[in-house]
Amino acid sequence: MIDDISIRYEDSFTDRKLTDPVLIEGLPGIGQVGKLVAEYMIHMLGAIKIGEIHAIYLPPQVILDEHGIARLPRNEIYLYRGAGQRDLLFLVGDFQSTSNEGHYLMADAYLDVAAELGVKRIYTLGGFGVGHLVNAPRVLGAANRTELIHEIEAAGVTFERDEPGGGIIGAAGLLLGMSGLRGIDGVCLMGETSGYLVDPMSAASVLAVLSKIIAVPVDPTQLNDRAAEMEKVVQGLLENERMQQDEELSYIG
Amino acid sequence: MIDDISIRYEDSFTDRKLTDPVLIEGLPGIGQVGKLVAEYMIHMLGAIKIGEIHAIYLPPQVILDEHGIARLPRNEIYLYRGAGQRDLLFLVGDFQSTSNEGHYLMADAYLDVAAELGVKRIYTLGGFGVGHLVNAPRVLGAANRTELIHEIEAAGVTFERDEPGGGIIGAAGLLLGMSGLRGIDGVCLMGETSGYLVDPMSAASVLAVLSKIIAVPVDPTQLNDRAAEMEKVVQGLLENERMQQDEELSYIG
Amino acid sequence: MIDDISIRYEDSFTDRKLTDPVLIEGLPGIGQVGKLVAEYMIHMLGAIKIGEIHAIYLPPQVILDEHGIARLPRNEIYLYRGAGQRDLLFLVGDFQSTSNEGHYLMADAYLDVAAELGVKRIYTLGGFGVGHLVNAPRVLGAANRTELIHEIEAAGVTFERDEPGGGIIGAAGLLLGMSGLRGIDGVCLMGETSGYLVDPMSAASVLAVLSKIIAVPVDPTQLNDRAAEMEKVVQGLLENERMQQDEELSYIG
Amino acid sequence: MIDDISIRYEDSFTDRKLTDPVLIEGLPGIGQVGKLVAEYMIHMLGAIKIGEIHAIYLPPQVILDEHGIARLPRNEIYLYRGAGQRDLLFLVGDFQSTSNEGHYLMADAYLDVAAELGVKRIYTLGGFGVGHLVNAPRVLGAANRTELIHEIEAAGVTFERDEPGGGIIGAAGLLLGMSGLRGIDGVCLMGETSGYLVDPMSAASVLAVLSKIIAVPVDPTQLNDRAAEMEKVVQGLLENERMQQDEELSYIG
Repeated sequence: MIDDISIRYEDSFTDRKLTDPVLIEGLPGIGQVGKLVAEYMIHMLGAIKIGEIHAIYLPPQVILDEHGIARLPRNEIYLYRGAGQRDLLFLVGDFQSTSNEGHYLMADAYLDVAAELGVKRIYTLGGFGVGHLVNAPRVLGAANRTELIHEIEAAGVTFERDEPGGGIIGAAGLLLGMSGLRGIDGVCLMGETSGYLVDPMSAASVLAVLSKIIAVPVDPTQLNDRAAEMEKVVQGLLENERMQQDEELSYIG
Repeated sequence: MIDDISIRYEDSFTDRKLTDPVLIEGLPGIGQVGKLVAEYMIHMLGAIKIGEIHAIYLPPQVILDEHGIARLPRNEIYLYRGAGQRDLLFLVGDFQSTSNEGHYLMADAYLDVAAELGVKRIYTLGGFGVGHLVNAPRVLGAANRTELIHEIEAAGVTFERDEPGGGIIGAAGLLLGMSGLRGIDGVCLMGETSGYLVDPMSAASVLAVLSKIIAVPVDPTQLNDRAAEMEKVVQGLLENERMQQDEELSYIG
Repeated sequence: MIDDISIRYEDSFTDRKLTDPVLIEGLPGIGQVGKLVAEYMIHMLGAIKIGEIHAIYLPPQVILDEHGIARLPRNEIYLYRGAGQRDLLFLVGDFQSTSNEGHYLMADAYLDVAAELGVKRIYTLGGFGVGHLVNAPRVLGAANRTELIHEIEAAGVTFERDEPGGGIIGAAGLLLGMSGLRGIDGVCLMGETSGYLVDPMSAASVLAVLSKIIAVPVDPTQLNDRAAEMEKVVQGLLENERMQQDEELSYIG
Repeated sequence: MIDDISIRYEDSFTDRKLTDPVLIEGLPGIGQVGKLVAEYMIHMLGAIKIGEIHAIYLPPQVILDEHGIARLPRNEIYLYRGAGQRDLLFLVGDFQSTSNEGHYLMADAYLDVAAELGVKRIYTLGGFGVGHLVNAPRVLGAANRTELIHEIEAAGVTFERDEPGGGIIGAAGLLLGMSGLRGIDGVCLMGETSGYLVDPMSAASVLAVLSKIIAVPVDPTQLNDRAAEMEKVVQGLLENERMQQDEELSYIG
């Protein structure tokens, strides 16, 4: 019988001794901010895939590529070997859990991977939806231990919360809370975003901060370009809206 | 793998011999009445935390404090040692279960704690929503054994029910029903409340009655103050509404 | 830990040797028809309670009686000893399962009881909602074996179905289907009913047929009285409606 | 206790040695296209039933036939022995799973059957809803291995996807994705269909392609007849609509 959650490592992943690894989570979420950052880093650093996770808690469907090849929804683990420096693990994927309980069980499985590979710190990435367009998105932070806050603040992360009683939903939140119970440090970095659109500008803000914290330089040019394109699209939409309003007013006037 | 429900006691909780303990449940619910009462008692009596409960049935998120420190949603157990008198245990927390089945499983876990610590009686606290503002909220009662009713009535609890076929939903109800099957007495105290707002006035009524029943005096001043403040807020809202209606009438007139 | 479904027999139920027992299911459903019939038979025959079933699939609440005594939702099994004749078992209760899967698991538990007590035939009772008031409600039938149909038809049960592709949802249906897999005969009797109101008239029709089939006379007077009262209530409602329509027409005219 | 999913083979199915069998899945779905094709092939080839599958993930009800005989919802497996040629297995049934997790668990059970019977390739059949009436429905394809695509394309299946990021939901998709993990080839054939109506015309397109691929001729006459009838019904509906629109216009004019 199928396992509720199954983790498989690539056959090529034989040397599992990692150097001071951190895990960076960028699963789908608000504004796809975390996903954009993690996938961009994988792309720019040339991280390689070392494993994948399937689960009955993911949507019951397959995903087709442009050639018509189908595959199950999955989460993936990528590894960037830092050449003597710290190694980076990335957790990315198609979906998060479709059920409440599944969210917990999958986060626990991610932590099994983290523990097995010797991870001592996790960065979870996400968007912080503010409901309006944001020009210079700040990066808001959360952590599972007080000592982490000063370290993270120094990198330009904001810890004052507009909604103090607020929470972080899904993997980005649960990994933070559950890693604490296993003695793993957890930091969440959330880029401000409208929440309406895929937001590369917010992702660029998060990337800048994360890159600084982990001291791994990542050229942001392509992400900035994408942000600039998105900016043009958004400006176009706003311009259109203004013109329609003017037209309506001229009818009335 | 993660347990569906996990109970951990604090390391400091070594002396588990309690004196005739009762368990007081005040999880979130209608008007937050039970939560207000239990948390107020913990605060005023200086009860100390002895354990916490995590579960995959709680919402899949973390809760942030004002410093940006994240923690999993949880329920907590507090202990007040009555100095030779009866000890009090409190069950409070962030949320109740998100699923029907989880409600049963979590109530069962609470009863495991109660049984382990020698609890022979449980008081569950809640609000009884009446759909309109209540000036002098009564405290309605329910119990899992006929013999308990007279004892509780004597403390000023009303047992006539407006809706005789009605029920009590969630932990406050299930603990009552399930404790009976384990031979533990269960009493539910429900303060009348509109159901629309957090209701410290209703909580004050419940506190007065509970304090009398368990013969543990608790200074109600701060709760009464909060009720008075809330009363002012509500009066302000009502005043506003009246003024708007008058304005509308004067337009018509 | 709590069982997902638990069956307990009364301590007094020691002689478990039953004479050719049949099980009659009357859980809540459309028009409460099955529930009315089964509870009426229990009442009139003086059947005694021999067991009860609790489950995490029932709603997470307690039910209060008029004295404020709380109990868990449950299903109950009653026994009528037929004095040398066939014994009757009744399955009644507060609710059916709140989840799809729970419906299957609970029906399986009912069949465990049936098998343990030697039941060879099950009658499930219900309402067949037609969406309009019915004056002389027919009793529609379904069975899990062709041979049963002629026997049941002879008692005045209709087997032509208005909606041939239709189904029977919940315990009344599942018990029929699942008993077949265990070699137990299953017959479902459904009284036509509007589906809007508790329907003692439909229940009286079902009682008459069932009583005939199992050859156990049950005085229908009290149920007929209740049906007559309900009839008056319904006529009053219809009269009211007609008068309002007349009034509206006279305004227009 | 009941199994969550149970598979039973017919007693008559003793010779389980099959010749190069393929499994053809046609469970209910968009436009009932897959169901129509698979059931038509079973009918025309005279395939015989060799097993059935029950599950708590199917709707909690029974299905009545025109005589009032009730049976549980189920999926069925049929076998057509190809007389020395390839044998065909068919998976058809009443419903798919009611829950997300159940979809995965049931697909896994289907693959247990496939593996046990030596299946090396699975064809899943379905409709591809386009939201408007389709005159000459194309057959779109998906596969779980690149090598399969050329083979299938040669039979007239289209692999360019209008929505490249799209997916295939339910058994038709999951079987494709999950069979890959077991080393079984998987091909999905989807007939274009409006998605609003049962669509025998789309089914006829899929049948033509599938019949060619597996080199098993199936006389399409009866399915084409049904498609022609359906075509008449649809034309009648469209005609009606046009007439109503004309009427409305003539009122205005």
